Amino acid sequence: MISISIIGSGNVAQHLITALKKAEGIELKQAMSRQENSLSHLLDSKKIITDYSKLQKADVIIIAVSDNAISEVSNQIQFENQLIVHTSGSMSIDALNDKNRKGVFYPLQTFSKSKEVDFKIIPICLEAQNENDFQTLETVAKSISNIIYKVDSEQRKALHIAAIFVSNFVNHLYQIGNDICIENDLSFDILKPLIQETANKILRLSPNEAQTGPAKRKDTQIINAHLNFLTDDNQKEIYKLLTKSIIDNGKKL
Amino acid sequence: MISISIIGSGNVAQHLITALKKAEGIELKQAMSRQENSLSHLLDSKKIITDYSKLQKADVIIIAVSDNAISEVSNQIQFENQLIVHTSGSMSIDALNDKNRKGVFYPLQTFSKSKEVDFKIIPICLEAQNENDFQTLETVAKSISNIIYKVDSEQRKALHIAAIFVSNFVNHLYQIGNDICIENDLSFDILKPLIQETANKILRLSPNEAQTGPAKRKDTQIINAHLNFLTDDNQKEIYKLLTKSIIDNGKKL
Repeated sequence: MISISIIGSGNVAQHLITALKKAEGIELKQAMSRQENSLSHLLDSKKIITDYSKLQKADVIIIAVSDNAISEVSNQIQFENQLIVHTSGSMSIDALNDKNRKGVFYPLQTFSKSKEVDFKIIPICLEAQNENDFQTLETVAKSISNIIYKVDSEQRKALHIAAIFVSNFVNHLYQIGNDICIENDLSFDILKPLIQETANKILRLSPNEAQTGPAKRKDTQIINAHLNFLTDDNQKEIYKLLTKSIIDNGKKL
Repeated sequence: MISISIIGSGNVAQHLITALKKAEGIELKQAMSRQENSLSHLLDSKKIITDYSKLQKADVIIIAVSDNAISEVSNQIQFENQLIVHTSGSMSIDALNDKNRKGVFYPLQTFSKSKEVDFKIIPICLEAQNENDFQTLETVAKSISNIIYKVDSEQRKALHIAAIFVSNFVNHLYQIGNDICIENDLSFDILKPLIQETANKILRLSPNEAQTGPAKRKDTQIINAHLNFLTDDNQKEIYKLLTKSIIDNGKKL
């Protein structure tokens, strides 16, 4: 049995609590939040604490707070040689205080409070300072997910940036598609099967094999017609830059 | 029974032939290709023709060729008052010759030869010059798909541009994610669950509700760290422009 406590009450903390509660071989010992009621829908009130003096030692303490609060939270923990991990894609393992054994437990997924996720298919990227701690984290990760990777701090930073391209930026392109539909009395629903298929194609084809469209074909006539059609300067600029990038990418190959 | 002939042998033509062959109430009469062998894996050789003199009248003739060949192909057809449609998202109905009754049969999907598609969930966008022809096209569309929309030429142009944002440009962001992974000794597979979830979220949340990440949070510290990390000028420029667009979009709301 591995005992775990979680500090934080945001999206990642809540999804982790939900997954770890159900996990075999895991004892969810305590969860700490500034406001008790932000976790009361998830946990028995005896397990919820609101200040550091109540925090007990555990096999792993997970700090799941916003990036810029990680160091401060880790400084507040009055233990030594305790395994403490954060869950951030963009922060180094060194954001954690040196008094304790450090690690990272980064679930690579986009979490929204209003949408449940299946943790089993979320890759968990692990880092630790020694093999023993790595194995502990691996056991915890395996209790909730089928996909585990060993990723160091430098790789994790790159991975987080790549994730921003394929998720945050992709979602923003959905937003622009939605805006263009609304401006032209079209339902955004028309685009949804295309969005699904574009994401599904990548499971079987490389992005280069999957690329289609006027930029890939270097069809300047269509590209210019589209630039004339677009009236929003921002949409036009994004269209131009991504079209150029697709064309340049074709030249590299 | 509605009789249909198809001119063309590219991705769209081949996927349409495959779907229409199996459709109830449809007789696939002829398919025309410059080279007979480009369709011989799909159709009986008696149905494949290679020149216009062999083309017979049908209830609908579908021109599924590249955008810039549509007018020329339509001019070559020696019929009058024949219902002729093209399958292009970006061309107006007026690309077709006036001697015949005109229409558009635009399946909104990304087709790759190497990947099968389920036509039932592909939206088909229809346009015709009279109600009778529209109904014929609707019957054909319903024989292969569950999703039919009436979309005029101006709307279709907008829709095609929106499709480029949510599909071609999205796939290019997958390409960049892939490149960043490779540069950092990471498997692109780590990103695939995130790619799937990002596309799935949009079925339940609006793009605005689904947006997450440093740009949405206006986290300039992380954004600057990412820009410092990126060494490729093109990746950097795309990161900057899309981040600015997400931040500006937040201000509009």
